[in-house]
Amino acid sequence: MPNRPLILITNDDGVQAQGIQVLTSLMRQLGDVVVVAPDSARSGSACAITPTGPVRVTLLNETEGMRCYACSGTPVDCVKLALEKVVPRKPDLMVSGINHGDNASVSLHYSGTVGAVLEACMKSVPAIAYSLMTRQKQCDFSPYEEVVLRVARCVLADGLPQDVCLNVNFPLVERLQGVRVCRLARGNWLQEWGETDKPDVYQLTGYFTNLEPEAEDTDYWALQHGMASVTPLQLDMTHYPLLRQLAKDLSDDTTQQTL
Amino acid sequence: MPNRPLILITNDDGVQAQGIQVLTSLMRQLGDVVVVAPDSARSGSACAITPTGPVRVTLLNETEGMRCYACSGTPVDCVKLALEKVVPRKPDLMVSGINHGDNASVSLHYSGTVGAVLEACMKSVPAIAYSLMTRQKQCDFSPYEEVVLRVARCVLADGLPQDVCLNVNFPLVERLQGVRVCRLARGNWLQEWGETDKPDVYQLTGYFTNLEPEAEDTDYWALQHGMASVTPLQLDMTHYPLLRQLAKDLSDDTTQQTL
Repeated sequence: MPNRPLILITNDDGVQAQGIQVLTSLMRQLGDVVVVAPDSARSGSACAITPTGPVRVTLLNETEGMRCYACSGTPVDCVKLALEKVVPRKPDLMVSGINHGDNASVSLHYSGTVGAVLEACMKSVPAIAYSLMTRQKQCDFSPYEEVVLRVARCVLADGLPQDVCLNVNFPLVERLQGVRVCRLARGNWLQEWGETDKPDVYQLTGYFTNLEPEAEDTDYWALQHGMASVTPLQLDMTHYPLLRQLAKDLSDDTTQQTL
Repeated sequence: MPNRPLILITNDDGVQAQGIQVLTSLMRQLGDVVVVAPDSARSGSACAITPTGPVRVTLLNETEGMRCYACSGTPVDCVKLALEKVVPRKPDLMVSGINHGDNASVSLHYSGTVGAVLEACMKSVPAIAYSLMTRQKQCDFSPYEEVVLRVARCVLADGLPQDVCLNVNFPLVERLQGVRVCRLARGNWLQEWGETDKPDVYQLTGYFTNLEPEAEDTDYWALQHGMASVTPLQLDMTHYPLLRQLAKDLSDDTTQQTL
Protein backbone atom coordinates (compact mmCIF):
# COMPACT_ATOMS: atom_id res chain seq x y z
CA MET A 1 0.00 0.00 0.00
CA PRO A 2 2.30 2.78 -1.22
CA ASN A 3 -0.03 5.60 -0.16
CA ARG A 4 -0.20 4.71 3.48
CA PRO A 5 1.25 7.42 5.73
CA LEU A 6 4.75 6.82 7.11
CA ILE A 7 4.92 7.28 10.88
CA LEU A 8 8.14 7.51 12.91
CA ILE A 9 7.91 6.48 16.58
CA THR A 10 10.23 6.97 19.54
CA ASN A 11 10.08 7.48 23.32
CA ASP A 12 12.36 7.99 26.30
CA ASP A 13 11.42 4.94 28.37
CA GLY A 14 13.20 2.63 25.94
CA VAL A 15 12.12 0.42 23.08
CA GLN A 16 10.87 -2.33 25.40
CA ALA A 17 8.47 -0.11 27.37
CA GLN A 18 4.78 -0.95 27.27
CA GLY A 19 3.84 2.61 26.29
CA ILE A 20 5.73 2.55 22.98
CA GLN A 21 4.37 -0.88 22.17
CA VAL A 22 0.81 0.34 22.65
CA LEU A 23 1.56 3.45 20.61
CA THR A 24 3.08 1.37 17.82
CA SER A 25 0.10 -0.93 17.56
CA LEU A 26 -2.23 2.11 17.41
CA MET A 27 -0.15 3.85 14.73
CA ARG A 28 -0.18 0.70 12.61
CA GLN A 29 -3.89 1.33 12.18
CA LEU A 30 -2.99 4.63 10.50
CA GLY A 31 0.08 3.83 8.41
CA ASP A 32 3.41 2.12 8.01
CA VAL A 33 5.61 2.61 11.05
CA VAL A 34 9.32 2.84 11.78
CA VAL A 35 10.29 2.66 15.46
CA VAL A 36 13.71 4.04 16.45
CA ALA A 37 13.82 4.17 20.24
CA PRO A 38 16.47 4.16 22.97
CA ASP A 39 17.86 0.73 23.86
CA SER A 40 17.25 1.51 27.56
CA ALA A 41 15.37 4.01 29.70
CA ARG A 42 16.38 7.63 29.06
CA SER A 43 13.92 9.53 31.23
CA GLY A 44 14.83 13.15 31.86
CA SER A 45 16.87 13.40 28.66
CA ALA A 46 15.22 16.63 27.51
CA CYS A 47 16.72 17.69 24.15
CA ALA A 48 20.11 16.19 25.05
CA ILE A 49 22.30 14.86 22.24
CA THR A 50 25.44 12.72 22.22
CA PRO A 51 28.12 14.99 20.75
CA THR A 52 31.14 12.98 21.90
CA GLY A 53 30.35 9.30 21.66
CA PRO A 54 29.35 7.02 18.80
CA VAL A 55 25.67 6.15 18.43
CA ARG A 56 24.58 2.69 17.30
CA VAL A 57 21.29 1.74 15.67
CA THR A 58 20.26 -1.94 15.55
CA LEU A 59 17.34 -3.53 13.69
CA LEU A 60 15.34 -5.54 16.23
CA ASN A 61 12.51 -6.84 14.08
CA GLU A 62 10.65 -6.26 10.86
CA THR A 63 7.21 -7.25 9.70
CA GLU A 64 4.85 -6.07 6.96
CA GLY A 65 4.45 -2.31 7.44
CA MET A 66 6.69 -2.13 10.54
CA ARG A 67 10.40 -1.94 11.30
CA CYS A 68 11.76 -1.55 14.83
CA TYR A 69 15.26 -0.36 15.80
CA ALA A 70 17.04 0.14 19.11
CA CYS A 71 19.41 3.11 19.35
CA SER A 72 22.17 3.70 21.91
CA GLY A 73 21.58 7.46 21.96
CA THR A 74 19.12 9.89 23.49
CA PRO A 75 15.56 10.36 22.19
CA VAL A 76 16.75 13.35 20.12
CA ASP A 77 19.60 11.23 18.71
CA CYS A 78 16.98 8.61 17.78
CA VAL A 79 14.99 11.15 15.77
CA LYS A 80 18.06 12.67 14.12
CA LEU A 81 19.42 9.25 13.17
CA ALA A 82 16.03 7.95 12.03
CA LEU A 83 15.43 10.91 9.74
CA GLU A 84 18.90 10.92 8.19
CA LYS A 85 19.81 7.22 8.07
CA VAL A 86 16.79 4.97 8.65
CA VAL A 87 13.48 6.06 7.13
CA PRO A 88 12.98 5.63 3.37
CA ARG A 89 11.38 9.07 3.02
CA LYS A 90 10.35 12.01 5.21
CA PRO A 91 7.67 10.75 7.62
CA ASP A 92 4.15 12.15 7.48
CA LEU A 93 3.98 12.08 11.27
CA MET A 94 6.28 11.51 14.22
CA VAL A 95 4.93 10.38 17.59
CA SER A 96 6.69 9.93 20.92
CA GLY A 97 5.59 7.96 23.98
CA ILE A 98 3.31 6.90 25.41
CA ASN A 99 5.47 8.07 28.30
CA HIS A 100 5.10 6.45 31.69
CA GLY A 101 4.84 9.71 33.63
CA ASP A 102 3.18 13.00 32.73
CA ASN A 103 4.97 15.76 30.84
CA ALA A 104 2.62 18.58 31.70
CA SER A 105 3.43 22.17 32.79
CA VAL A 106 6.69 23.96 32.07
CA SER A 107 8.37 20.92 33.60
CA LEU A 108 8.20 19.47 30.09
CA HIS A 109 11.61 21.06 29.56
CA TYR A 110 13.10 17.97 31.29
CA SER A 111 11.26 15.49 29.10
CA GLY A 112 12.96 13.27 26.55
CA THR A 113 9.53 12.37 25.19
CA VAL A 114 8.95 16.04 24.40
CA GLY A 115 12.58 16.57 23.34
CA ALA A 116 12.06 14.02 20.59
CA VAL A 117 9.03 15.83 19.18
CA LEU A 118 10.84 19.16 19.30
CA GLU A 119 13.57 17.57 17.19
CA ALA A 120 11.06 16.29 14.64
CA CYS A 121 9.51 19.76 14.64
CA MET A 122 12.94 21.28 13.88
CA LYS A 123 13.08 18.97 10.89
CA SER A 124 9.58 20.03 9.75
CA VAL A 125 7.94 16.69 10.57
CA PRO A 126 4.52 17.08 12.27
CA ALA A 127 4.97 15.59 15.74
CA ILE A 128 2.99 14.63 18.84
CA ALA A 129 4.20 13.68 22.34
CA TYR A 130 1.92 11.42 24.42
CA SER A 131 2.35 10.90 28.16
CA LEU A 132 0.37 9.17 30.90
CA MET A 133 0.32 10.53 34.43
CA THR A 134 1.71 7.48 36.22
CA ARG A 135 5.10 5.91 36.79
CA GLN A 136 3.63 2.38 36.71
CA LYS A 137 5.48 0.19 34.23
CA GLN A 138 2.36 -1.80 33.37
CA CYS A 139 -0.80 0.22 32.78
CA ASP A 140 -4.16 -0.11 31.10
CA PHE A 141 -3.83 2.23 28.11
CA SER A 142 -7.25 1.38 26.69
CA PRO A 143 -9.01 4.49 28.09
CA TYR A 144 -6.72 6.68 25.96
CA GLU A 145 -6.59 4.84 22.66
CA GLU A 146 -9.43 6.72 20.99
CA VAL A 147 -7.87 10.12 21.81
CA VAL A 148 -4.38 9.00 20.73
CA LEU A 149 -5.85 8.10 17.36
CA ARG A 150 -8.09 11.18 17.16
CA VAL A 151 -5.15 13.58 17.64
CA ALA A 152 -2.92 11.64 15.24
CA ARG A 153 -5.64 11.55 12.56
CA CYS A 154 -6.18 15.28 12.99
CA VAL A 155 -2.48 16.03 12.47
CA LEU A 156 -2.20 13.61 9.54
CA ALA A 157 -5.17 15.31 7.89
CA ASP A 158 -4.42 18.97 8.63
CA GLY A 159 -0.72 19.10 9.46
CA LEU A 160 0.61 21.62 11.96
CA PRO A 161 1.96 25.15 11.54
CA GLN A 162 5.70 25.49 10.89
CA ASP A 163 7.75 25.10 14.10
CA VAL A 164 4.78 23.94 16.18
CA CYS A 165 4.20 20.47 17.66
CA LEU A 166 1.70 18.95 20.10
CA ASN A 167 2.00 17.75 23.68
CA VAL A 168 -0.74 15.36 24.86
CA ASN A 169 -1.10 14.18 28.46
CA PHE A 170 -3.52 11.68 29.97
CA PRO A 171 -4.62 11.37 33.61
CA LEU A 172 -4.66 7.89 35.12
CA VAL A 173 -8.40 7.17 34.96
CA GLU A 174 -10.72 4.39 33.92
CA ARG A 175 -12.69 6.76 31.70
CA LEU A 176 -11.57 10.14 30.35
CA GLN A 177 -13.81 13.10 31.18
CA GLY A 178 -13.00 14.64 27.82
CA VAL A 179 -10.22 16.35 25.87
CA ARG A 180 -9.11 19.86 26.67
CA VAL A 181 -6.84 22.09 24.59
CA CYS A 182 -4.84 24.17 27.05
CA ARG A 183 -1.66 26.02 27.86
CA LEU A 184 1.22 24.79 29.99
CA ALA A 185 0.74 25.35 33.70
CA ARG A 186 3.35 27.28 35.65
CA GLY A 187 4.81 24.89 38.16
CA ASN A 188 7.87 23.74 39.92
CA TRP A 189 9.56 20.82 41.63
CA LEU A 190 10.34 21.17 45.32
CA GLN A 191 12.46 19.27 47.87
CA GLU A 192 14.26 17.66 44.98
CA TRP A 193 17.25 16.04 46.68
CA GLY A 194 17.10 13.02 48.92
CA GLU A 195 20.03 12.18 51.16
CA THR A 196 22.04 8.99 50.65
CA ASP A 197 24.34 7.13 53.02
CA LYS A 198 27.26 9.23 51.74
CA PRO A 199 27.71 12.90 52.60
CA ASP A 200 27.58 15.21 49.60
CA VAL A 201 25.84 12.54 47.50
CA TYR A 202 22.19 13.08 46.71
CA GLN A 203 19.37 11.37 44.83
CA LEU A 204 16.88 13.30 42.69
CA THR A 205 13.35 13.05 44.06
CA GLY A 206 10.79 15.73 45.07
CA TYR A 207 7.26 16.64 44.19
CA PHE A 208 5.60 18.94 41.67
CA THR A 209 3.64 22.01 42.71
CA ASN A 210 1.18 23.67 40.35
CA LEU A 211 1.76 27.40 40.93
CA GLU A 212 -1.66 28.35 39.55
CA PRO A 213 -4.04 25.60 40.74
CA GLU A 214 -7.15 27.73 40.15
CA ALA A 215 -6.38 28.46 36.48
CA GLU A 216 -8.79 26.35 34.43
CA ASP A 217 -6.97 26.87 31.13
CA THR A 218 -3.86 24.86 32.03
CA ASP A 219 -2.85 21.32 31.20
CA TYR A 220 -2.37 20.46 34.83
CA TRP A 221 -5.90 21.57 35.69
CA ALA A 222 -7.29 19.39 32.90
CA LEU A 223 -5.37 16.36 34.15
CA GLN A 224 -6.49 16.92 37.72
CA HIS A 225 -10.08 16.95 36.46
CA GLY A 226 -9.82 13.67 34.60
CA MET A 227 -9.36 15.13 31.12
CA ALA A 228 -6.73 14.62 28.46
CA SER A 229 -4.73 17.80 27.77
CA VAL A 230 -3.54 18.88 24.33
CA THR A 231 -1.04 21.76 24.20
CA PRO A 232 0.53 23.21 21.06
CA LEU A 233 4.24 23.93 21.62
CA GLN A 234 6.47 26.31 19.68
CA LEU A 235 10.20 25.99 19.04
CA ASP A 236 10.81 29.71 19.34
CA MET A 237 11.42 30.60 22.99
CA THR A 238 11.97 34.32 22.34
CA HIS A 239 10.05 36.47 24.82
CA TYR A 240 8.96 39.26 22.47
CA PRO A 241 7.47 41.69 25.03
CA LEU A 242 10.89 42.15 26.62
CA LEU A 243 12.76 42.63 23.34
CA ARG A 244 11.99 46.31 22.91
CA GLN A 245 12.61 47.24 26.53
CA LEU A 246 15.98 45.48 26.53
CA ALA A 247 16.94 47.15 23.28
CA LYS A 248 16.64 50.49 25.08
CA ASP A 249 18.58 49.34 28.13
CA LEU A 250 21.35 47.30 26.60
CA SER A 251 22.07 47.92 22.97
CA ASP A 252 24.37 50.48 21.39
CA ASP A 253 22.67 53.24 19.44
CA THR A 254 24.23 52.29 16.18
CA THR A 255 23.16 48.67 16.15
CA GLN A 256 19.49 48.66 16.95
CA GLN A 257 17.95 50.99 14.40
CA THR A 258 15.54 48.37 13.16
CA LEU A 259 13.90 47.62 16.49
CA MET B 1 30.40 42.82 52.97
CA PRO B 2 26.93 41.41 53.72
CA ASN B 3 25.18 43.49 51.08
CA ARG B 4 27.13 42.25 48.12
CA PRO B 5 24.97 40.37 45.60
CA LEU B 6 25.20 36.57 45.65
CA ILE B 7 25.87 35.11 42.19
CA LEU B 8 25.57 31.42 41.28
CA ILE B 9 27.68 30.23 38.34
CA THR B 10 27.62 27.06 36.24
CA ASN B 11 28.33 25.90 32.68
CA ASP B 12 28.24 22.77 30.54
CA ASP B 13 31.90 22.61 29.53
CA GLY B 14 32.93 21.58 33.03
CA VAL B 15 34.36 23.39 36.03
CA GLN B 16 37.89 23.43 34.56
CA ALA B 17 36.94 25.19 31.31
CA GLN B 18 38.48 28.56 30.58
CA GLY B 19 35.09 30.13 29.90
CA ILE B 20 33.74 29.57 33.42
CA GLN B 21 36.98 30.78 34.95
CA VAL B 22 36.75 34.03 33.01
CA LEU B 23 33.08 34.38 33.94
CA THR B 24 33.86 33.74 37.62
CA SER B 25 36.55 36.38 37.74
CA LEU B 26 34.20 38.90 36.10
CA MET B 27 31.32 38.10 38.47
CA ARG B 28 33.62 38.57 41.48
CA GLN B 29 33.69 42.25 40.49
CA LEU B 30 29.93 42.32 41.09
CA GLY B 31 29.38 40.16 44.15
CA ASP B 32 30.12 37.02 46.12
CA VAL B 33 30.10 33.94 43.91
CA VAL B 34 29.32 30.25 44.30
CA VAL B 35 30.38 28.03 41.41
CA VAL B 36 28.67 24.63 41.06
CA ALA B 37 29.66 23.20 37.71
CA PRO B 38 29.91 19.75 36.10
CA ASP B 39 33.06 17.81 36.94
CA SER B 40 33.58 17.13 33.22
CA ALA B 41 32.32 18.37 29.86
CA ARG B 42 28.55 18.02 29.45
CA SER B 43 27.96 19.72 26.12
CA GLY B 44 24.60 19.00 24.52
CA SER B 45 22.96 18.27 27.89
CA ALA B 46 19.98 20.54 27.26
CA CYS B 47 17.65 20.46 30.30
CA ALA B 48 18.57 16.85 31.06
CA ILE B 49 18.48 15.69 34.67
CA THR B 50 19.80 12.55 36.41
CA PRO B 51 16.66 10.82 37.70
CA THR B 52 18.22 7.41 38.31
CA GLY B 53 21.73 7.83 39.62
CA PRO B 54 23.21 9.57 42.66
CA VAL B 55 24.70 13.03 42.17
CA ARG B 56 27.82 14.10 44.07
CA VAL B 57 28.92 17.64 44.87
CA THR B 58 32.53 18.27 45.96
CA LEU B 59 34.09 21.48 47.29
CA LEU B 60 37.15 22.24 45.17
CA ASN B 61 38.31 25.51 46.69
CA GLU B 62 37.20 28.42 48.78
CA THR B 63 38.53 31.95 49.12
CA GLU B 64 37.11 35.22 50.41
CA GLY B 65 33.85 35.79 48.52
CA MET B 66 34.13 32.64 46.37
CA ARG B 67 33.39 28.94 46.76
CA CYS B 68 33.79 26.47 43.91
CA TYR B 69 32.22 23.00 43.67
CA ALA B 70 32.36 20.20 41.11
CA CYS B 71 29.16 18.23 40.56
CA SER B 72 28.79 14.81 38.92
CA GLY B 73 25.44 15.71 37.34
CA THR B 74 24.18 17.69 34.39
CA PRO B 75 24.12 21.51 34.32
CA VAL B 76 20.47 21.43 35.43
CA ASP B 77 21.39 19.08 38.28
CA CYS B 78 24.11 21.59 39.25
CA VAL B 79 21.57 24.40 39.52
CA LYS B 80 19.00 22.29 41.37
CA LEU B 81 21.60 21.03 43.83
CA ALA B 82 23.19 24.46 44.29
CA LEU B 83 19.88 26.12 45.07
CA GLU B 84 18.67 23.46 47.49
CA LYS B 85 21.87 22.28 49.19
CA VAL B 86 24.79 24.65 48.58
CA VAL B 87 24.02 28.37 48.52
CA PRO B 88 23.40 30.13 51.86
CA ARG B 89 20.44 32.10 50.44
CA LYS B 90 18.60 32.57 47.17
CA PRO B 91 21.08 34.06 44.67
CA ASP B 92 20.48 37.53 43.23
CA LEU B 93 21.73 36.34 39.85
CA MET B 94 22.65 33.08 38.13
CA VAL B 95 25.01 33.03 35.14
CA SER B 96 26.05 30.15 32.89
CA GLY B 97 29.05 29.90 30.56
CA ILE B 98 30.94 31.39 28.99
CA ASN B 99 30.26 28.47 26.67
CA HIS B 100 32.86 27.43 24.13
CA GLY B 101 30.48 27.31 21.17
CA ASP B 102 27.51 29.50 20.29
CA ASN B 103 23.98 28.80 21.52
CA ALA B 104 22.13 30.96 19.05
CA SER B 105 18.96 30.19 17.05
CA VAL B 106 16.37 27.59 18.03
CA SER B 107 19.31 25.17 18.28
CA LEU B 108 19.62 26.44 21.86
CA HIS B 109 17.25 23.62 22.77
CA TYR B 110 20.31 21.32 22.79
CA SER B 111 22.36 23.56 25.06
CA GLY B 112 23.29 22.66 28.62
CA THR B 113 24.45 26.24 29.11
CA VAL B 114 20.94 27.43 28.32
CA GLY B 115 19.34 24.48 30.16
CA ALA B 116 21.00 25.69 33.36
CA VAL B 117 19.54 29.20 33.04
CA LEU B 118 16.09 27.80 32.29
CA GLU B 119 16.34 25.86 35.56
CA ALA B 120 17.32 28.98 37.50
CA CYS B 121 14.43 30.76 35.80
CA MET B 122 12.04 28.00 36.96
CA LYS B 123 13.25 28.70 40.48
CA SER B 124 12.68 32.48 40.05
CA VAL B 125 16.39 33.37 40.02
CA PRO B 126 17.27 35.97 37.34
CA ALA B 127 19.60 34.16 34.95
CA ILE B 128 21.86 34.81 31.95
CA ALA B 129 23.54 32.34 29.56
CA TYR B 130 26.75 33.48 27.84
CA SER B 131 28.27 31.70 24.83
CA LEU B 132 31.13 32.39 22.42
CA MET B 133 30.93 31.31 18.81
CA THR B 134 34.02 29.08 18.74
CA ARG B 135 34.91 25.56 19.80
CA GLN B 136 38.48 26.59 20.71
CA LYS B 137 39.36 25.56 24.23
CA GLN B 138 41.63 28.56 24.75
CA CYS B 139 40.27 31.91 23.59
CA ASP B 140 40.78 35.60 24.20
CA PHE B 141 37.64 36.58 26.10
CA SER B 142 38.74 40.19 26.65
CA PRO B 143 36.66 41.63 23.76
CA TYR B 144 33.49 40.48 25.55
CA GLU B 145 34.17 41.36 29.17
CA GLU B 146 32.53 44.78 29.12
CA VAL B 147 29.29 43.38 27.66
CA VAL B 148 29.25 40.41 30.06
CA LEU B 149 29.39 42.89 32.91
CA ARG B 150 26.94 45.34 31.32
CA VAL B 151 24.23 42.69 30.93
CA ALA B 152 24.82 41.27 34.42
CA ARG B 153 24.69 44.73 36.00
CA CYS B 154 21.47 45.47 34.12
CA VAL B 155 19.82 42.29 35.44
CA LEU B 156 21.12 42.84 38.97
CA ALA B 157 19.70 46.36 38.92
CA ASP B 158 16.36 45.77 37.20
CA GLY B 159 15.67 42.04 37.54
CA LEU B 160 13.81 40.16 34.83
CA PRO B 161 10.10 39.42 34.34
CA GLN B 162 8.79 36.22 35.92
CA ASP B 163 9.67 33.13 33.85
CA VAL B 164 12.02 35.03 31.51
CA CYS B 165 15.81 34.69 31.28
CA LEU B 166 18.50 35.99 28.91
CA ASN B 167 20.64 34.31 26.26
CA VAL B 168 23.79 36.19 25.23
CA ASN B 169 26.06 35.13 22.36
CA PHE B 170 29.36 36.59 21.19
CA PRO B 171 30.98 36.29 17.75
CA LEU B 172 34.68 35.42 17.64
CA VAL B 173 36.10 38.88 16.92
CA GLU B 174 38.87 41.12 18.13
CA ARG B 175 36.44 43.98 18.66
CA LEU B 176 32.64 43.77 18.98
CA GLN B 177 30.63 45.86 16.52
CA GLY B 178 27.99 46.44 19.19
CA VAL B 179 25.22 44.74 21.13
CA ARG B 180 21.97 43.77 19.52
CA VAL B 181 18.77 42.63 21.25
CA CYS B 182 17.16 40.11 18.93
CA ARG B 183 15.00 37.05 18.52
CA LEU B 184 16.15 33.48 17.94
CA ALA B 185 16.85 32.66 14.31
CA ARG B 186 15.09 29.74 12.68
CA GLY B 187 17.74 27.26 11.73
CA ASN B 188 18.68 23.67 11.52
CA TRP B 189 21.55 21.20 11.58
CA LEU B 190 22.18 19.19 8.41
CA GLN B 191 24.24 16.12 7.49
CA GLU B 192 24.47 15.32 11.15
CA TRP B 193 25.84 11.78 11.12
CA GLY B 194 29.37 10.82 10.17
CA GLU B 195 30.17 7.22 9.40
CA THR B 196 32.55 5.21 11.58
CA ASP B 197 34.50 2.03 10.86
CA LYS B 198 31.54 -0.02 12.11
CA PRO B 199 28.30 -0.37 10.17
CA ASP B 200 25.26 1.07 11.95
CA VAL B 201 27.49 3.14 14.23
CA TYR B 202 27.54 6.89 13.64
CA GLN B 203 29.15 10.01 15.07
CA LEU B 204 27.27 13.26 15.52
CA THR B 205 28.67 16.04 13.33
CA GLY B 206 27.03 18.31 10.74
CA TYR B 207 26.70 22.00 10.10
CA PHE B 208 24.19 24.66 11.02
CA THR B 209 22.07 26.43 8.41
CA ASN B 210 20.33 29.72 9.15
CA LEU B 211 16.91 29.35 7.49
CA GLU B 212 16.36 33.12 7.34
CA PRO B 213 19.78 34.63 6.55
CA GLU B 214 18.30 37.94 5.38
CA ALA B 215 16.35 38.61 8.60
CA GLU B 216 18.21 41.37 10.43
CA ASP B 217 16.34 40.90 13.71
CA THR B 218 17.80 37.49 14.57
CA ASP B 219 20.63 36.49 16.88
CA TYR B 220 22.41 34.66 14.11
CA TRP B 221 22.40 37.75 11.89
CA ALA B 222 23.89 39.83 14.72
CA LEU B 223 26.67 37.28 15.27
CA GLN B 224 27.46 37.11 11.57
CA HIS B 225 27.83 40.89 11.60
CA GLY B 226 30.26 40.99 14.49
CA MET B 227 27.75 41.95 17.18
CA ALA B 228 26.86 40.40 20.51
CA SER B 229 23.27 39.11 20.59
CA VAL B 230 20.97 39.33 23.61
CA THR B 231 17.72 37.35 23.45
CA PRO B 232 15.08 37.15 26.19
CA LEU B 233 13.78 33.58 26.55
CA GLN B 234 10.51 32.43 28.09
CA LEU B 235 9.81 29.17 29.89
CA ASP B 236 6.31 28.88 28.48
CA MET B 237 6.46 27.09 25.13
CA THR B 238 2.69 27.19 24.54
CA HIS B 239 1.85 28.31 20.99
CA TYR B 240 -1.20 30.44 21.76
CA PRO B 241 -2.37 31.15 18.17
CA LEU B 242 -3.06 27.44 17.63
CA LEU B 243 -4.91 26.93 20.93
CA ARG B 244 -8.28 28.17 19.74
CA GLN B 245 -8.17 26.39 16.41
CA LEU B 246 -7.29 23.10 18.04
CA ALA B 247 -10.05 23.51 20.60
CA LYS B 248 -12.52 23.51 17.72
CA ASP B 249 -10.94 20.50 16.03
CA LEU B 250 -10.11 18.26 18.94
CA SER B 251 -11.95 18.94 22.15
CA ASP B 252 -15.27 17.59 23.30
CA ASP B 253 -18.09 20.13 23.56
CA THR B 254 -18.51 19.73 27.27
CA THR B 255 -14.92 20.37 28.25
CA GLN B 256 -13.89 23.52 26.46
CA GLN B 257 -16.48 26.08 27.48
CA THR B 258 -13.90 28.54 28.67
CA LEU B 259 -11.86 28.73 25.47
